[in-house]
Amino acid sequence: MIIVLKDGIGKDKIKSFSDELSRDYGVKVNTWFGTHSTVLGLIGDTQSVDIERVQANDIVDTVKRVQEPYKKANRKFHPDDTVIEVAGRKIGGGNIAIIAGPCSVENRDQICGIAERVKAAGASFLRGGAFKPRTSPYSFQGLRAEGIELLLEAKKQTGLPIVTEIMSINHIDLFADVDIIQVGARNMQNFELLKALGATGKPILLKRGLANTIEETLMSAEYIMSAGNEKVILCERGVRTFEDYTRNTLDISAVPVFKRLSHLPVIVDPSHASGIDWLVEPLSLSAVAAGADGLIIEVHNDPPHALSDGAQSVTPDAFDVIAKKVFHLKKALADL
Amino acid sequence: MIIVLKDGIGKDKIKSFSDELSRDYGVKVNTWFGTHSTVLGLIGDTQSVDIERVQANDIVDTVKRVQEPYKKANRKFHPDDTVIEVAGRKIGGGNIAIIAGPCSVENRDQICGIAERVKAAGASFLRGGAFKPRTSPYSFQGLRAEGIELLLEAKKQTGLPIVTEIMSINHIDLFADVDIIQVGARNMQNFELLKALGATGKPILLKRGLANTIEETLMSAEYIMSAGNEKVILCERGVRTFEDYTRNTLDISAVPVFKRLSHLPVIVDPSHASGIDWLVEPLSLSAVAAGADGLIIEVHNDPPHALSDGAQSVTPDAFDVIAKKVFHLKKALADL
Amino acid sequence: MIIVLKDGIGKDKIKSFSDELSRDYGVKVNTWFGTHSTVLGLIGDTQSVDIERVQANDIVDTVKRVQEPYKKANRKFHPDDTVIEVAGRKIGGGNIAIIAGPCSVENRDQICGIAERVKAAGASFLRGGAFKPRTSPYSFQGLRAEGIELLLEAKKQTGLPIVTEIMSINHIDLFADVDIIQVGARNMQNFELLKALGATGKPILLKRGLANTIEETLMSAEYIMSAGNEKVILCERGVRTFEDYTRNTLDISAVPVFKRLSHLPVIVDPSHASGIDWLVEPLSLSAVAAGADGLIIEVHNDPPHALSDGAQSVTPDAFDVIAKKVFHLKKALADL
Amino acid sequence: MIIVLKDGIGKDKIKSFSDELSRDYGVKVNTWFGTHSTVLGLIGDTQSVDIERVQANDIVDTVKRVQEPYKKANRKFHPDDTVIEVAGRKIGGGNIAIIAGPCSVENRDQICGIAERVKAAGASFLRGGAFKPRTSPYSFQGLRAEGIELLLEAKKQTGLPIVTEIMSINHIDLFADVDIIQVGARNMQNFELLKALGATGKPILLKRGLANTIEETLMSAEYIMSAGNEKVILCERGVRTFEDYTRNTLDISAVPVFKRLSHLPVIVDPSHASGIDWLVEPLSLSAVAAGADGLIIEVHNDPPHALSDGAQSVTPDAFDVIAKKVFHLKKALADL
Repeated sequence: MIIVLKDGIGKDKIKSFSDELSRDYGVKVNTWFGTHSTVLGLIGDTQSVDIERVQANDIVDTVKRVQEPYKKANRKFHPDDTVIEVAGRKIGGGNIAIIAGPCSVENRDQICGIAERVKAAGASFLRGGAFKPRTSPYSFQGLRAEGIELLLEAKKQTGLPIVTEIMSINHIDLFADVDIIQVGARNMQNFELLKALGATGKPILLKRGLANTIEETLMSAEYIMSAGNEKVILCERGVRTFEDYTRNTLDISAVPVFKRLSHLPVIVDPSHASGIDWLVEPLSLSAVAAGADGLIIEVHNDPPHALSDGAQSVTPDAFDVIAKKVFHLKKALADL
Repeated sequence: MIIVLKDGIGKDKIKSFSDELSRDYGVKVNTWFGTHSTVLGLIGDTQSVDIERVQANDIVDTVKRVQEPYKKANRKFHPDDTVIEVAGRKIGGGNIAIIAGPCSVENRDQICGIAERVKAAGASFLRGGAFKPRTSPYSFQGLRAEGIELLLEAKKQTGLPIVTEIMSINHIDLFADVDIIQVGARNMQNFELLKALGATGKPILLKRGLANTIEETLMSAEYIMSAGNEKVILCERGVRTFEDYTRNTLDISAVPVFKRLSHLPVIVDPSHASGIDWLVEPLSLSAVAAGADGLIIEVHNDPPHALSDGAQSVTPDAFDVIAKKVFHLKKALADL
Repeated sequence: MIIVLKDGIGKDKIKSFSDELSRDYGVKVNTWFGTHSTVLGLIGDTQSVDIERVQANDIVDTVKRVQEPYKKANRKFHPDDTVIEVAGRKIGGGNIAIIAGPCSVENRDQICGIAERVKAAGASFLRGGAFKPRTSPYSFQGLRAEGIELLLEAKKQTGLPIVTEIMSINHIDLFADVDIIQVGARNMQNFELLKALGATGKPILLKRGLANTIEETLMSAEYIMSAGNEKVILCERGVRTFEDYTRNTLDISAVPVFKRLSHLPVIVDPSHASGIDWLVEPLSLSAVAAGADGLIIEVHNDPPHALSDGAQSVTPDAFDVIAKKVFHLKKALADL
Repeated sequence: MIIVLKDGIGKDKIKSFSDELSRDYGVKVNTWFGTHSTVLGLIGDTQSVDIERVQANDIVDTVKRVQEPYKKANRKFHPDDTVIEVAGRKIGGGNIAIIAGPCSVENRDQICGIAERVKAAGASFLRGGAFKPRTSPYSFQGLRAEGIELLLEAKKQTGLPIVTEIMSINHIDLFADVDIIQVGARNMQNFELLKALGATGKPILLKRGLANTIEETLMSAEYIMSAGNEKVILCERGVRTFEDYTRNTLDISAVPVFKRLSHLPVIVDPSHASGIDWLVEPLSLSAVAAGADGLIIEVHNDPPHALSDGAQSVTPDAFDVIAKKVFHLKKALADL
């Protein structure tokens, strides 16, 4: 960590500040006196140093981290790709995992029917919302516990492991048989939930928040990991910008950046990123070309009558085409 | 709600779609046939109509709401300002309420000492963080339950009602004696928490999310209100933009917009909006000039040694000046 | 265009407003009286109707366009892809055109040397900045007229047509022998420049502005086209967001959206979008997978000594690999 | 400037890099060898050091400026407020200057009539658009040269100095008698225009771009100032964000930040910032409370028939009230 001090600070003040940093954080402090300003360099484990606190000091001009603030999620300390294995399916390390299914679980026929179709098309996991985060309290809120029961039936019928979103720390027990627990974008910084999920040991699909940086996303992964659970899958699902043609703006660069900074698997959600069914195919292909380890795609047998997110859901027929192209592309990229 | 259909849709299809809307949502549907396109107008209570579902229909081009999607928070149905009274202090309706105190509760002397100072300066409420949302799992997470105990002691000593943030639905019992429960920006769309707070009947200070629109903020208020608790205070605390000189970008326009769309009280948090101590004064004055019902300001006796947010905390001496100017300005505005 | 009127407006006022719209814009106005609100539907060519003016009327609640405001750039009126041919090279219609070269032209050896290398790797066009838009007046501003001379020499030597940016309407004469004139992101809404370029008849590479929507970009293309020049190439180069790891945020969705809304060719600039050399390859591949008609890539023989944008420039060796992969991927996609 | 090098770089490489920096930029380089990384500190005038070039070097990890990159606009080198005097009216230094008038000049009666009204209400300057930047080529583009003639007539009649926008370097001669030349948000980084305006010596009203930072705005001021013209007035007019209730998001914090970083006068444009007539009053008051030196407000005698921006224009009657409140507030603030 580099701390630039303001002009004209006396040596006494600098020394007492250095001593304080050294004592409080167990770091070594080097001082470099320049003509116009003085710079302190902190050596050691600076991850616990609170930037805001340092900045609050009167004599400090600016502070700059040199080390990344995440440790367990950091590729530097874990050069190999993390590969998460769930019921024989692998996520990470150059495999392509497709998670597909409806936005909301609606009834047995719907979820089982879609599960059969996406399995046939090559999906490795079934998704389906049981607890639904909706902007309006007057919108359908999901089948909740019953939705999870139906997902488990579809799993039994098709063998597909299931992925579904958790919305409250109070519901963790209901997720005991869920294969991958999803944390939605709106809960990415629900830190108490993250800590509790860290204690479950289950694979966690962590969606990037609407206005969260790449680094903040890695810090949320770090919350789960530092609570003892290293099975975290990162998911880029678009961020919020001024552009309103699409529901969100897919930050495709986040895919290679996450892969470079972290060893965790990275998947992309083209459905929420765009909010438009016909964009799912080109965004899926671009995600795979950018190096994503997988996709999570909303598929519905009857989008106009979907209880949520119909506009961005593709039909099973359209999904057949998308999955085929994705696997073909992945093969072509492997030859490069 | 206005639904614009695509070109060249047959009358049969239009009729069956209209009938479906009418049946599913209990609304009346008027059809207007134009030369190039057909428009449907939905009449009645359209708040339950799911825009996404309508958009997912093949024959629909675009959909536009005419009614706002919030009802209980809507000034149209509640023209008078809501005034929330807490231990004799009023928030809303042209009063200026100042909530002040440290980012984090650190120890008895700190919280009681600051409480005395901000009370003397004219603050009506004491703030202090017990549960702290921090980006890093390695940062100080707050004194938690003990922090609430210390706040209650400061309340006992000074008579100031207390405001503190809740981070998990699991902690609600700990907040039984808290006067105003704060929902932080990162939890603004933690819908399960909002519903649970709706059941408490306690005044809720709802902070706008980092990337949430004014309408979404009102919809989150609606979650609390529709669960039975109408005591919601809205708080503008800056949104996330490309500008990086300030920690966030204070959306000052949100103040008069919230006041026009809703009857709920609106306060401003200049400390989090800017992240910089010397901006707290000008932003406080501008908030009051824009019509805010109050302010929430971070005050710390020793900012460089604050356990969190030191850079944006003002000293008690600086707070004396700010409060004096704010009250003076409020008086001048009342004469306009 | 759909105009929703406020509640409780008298029929007389509505009639006189309808008559005015009809008279001023030559459109037919249909009125639909609902229970709570009245809706006007404008039929005919509504592209000249000024939304702001309509909104300024006291009786108007909201206005919604049904027709897109662009005509010449609109795929509806021109279903086939526009293919622009320059010196035997095609841009658009499923071809992949790569434009490559240094950020700034620095001297004869540099530009000719790079030109040879990018030609050998498969680039169809040479780029190089002669007039350089720089945030600081104290940064290198380009070789200006001399830079264009050097580009023309490189063209003579290699046969590659050249692409270079114009910064002022005053310089148009200097661009007489330039093959494709680039309008930079900062000038995308320099409307006087766009009109003047419309009069040149030369192919124009139009970069999307840092904070401009897809629709605004098409409106800027419309400026050039309505001034008589239909040879416009759209370029997505990233937009400005809160994410600061990358220089900009590549809006990959803009590629398929531009292709659907317009018949114009669409290329991607991964160098400016990311600002980081090692991101150029994955972003190039993702752009091609998303359907881009080409790429514009910064290549420099000695990035650390480039006079501008060194951090995002790739070496000729790295470019060899990128071009090879891009062509391989394009071939694989053609087989889908 | 602080340059953090990557881990494990040999001393030879560091020395040759330091020597190069020293030689190329005339700065002194101090080296601080840490355990894990090495830091270089550049001393002297680092404003000409190209950050991008430094970053492009293989051995560099990150670079951080300590000095601001603007010099002439910097308050450090010019502690006193710049006060610009135009025809006896002062802008800057604690005065409140109101610039008011229609978005577009439409005809003699309109501009002269509005001029009389805004003068009577206390405006010091008349604004009016002659050259109009419009998103659509099919919208009214302004009366152009004739518009300037009409403004000059209104000036003759009322004595109010005039402010109007320039859109092209080609039109500078037409602005010979204009008192303050406005650079619009879309041209804030039209650097060739800025340089040319630097040569005119006339007061320049520089609007912040839609997606430009505070620092970039100061760099654009620096372009004008380094070309010899120090009479620059900064104008905050809202930036582009995800919020769509208002046309833009007024960044009120920019006012005190500009005032702290620079000595130049700062005004606010509440009309463009909000796009809504009823927001002009609260935003004007908040701007003055935040320390603005003035306001630029759109006033139209008949907003529904304005040829542009009617929705955000206030009537002369409404302007009377706003101006009265603004002056009253300014007086109250002076007593603080």
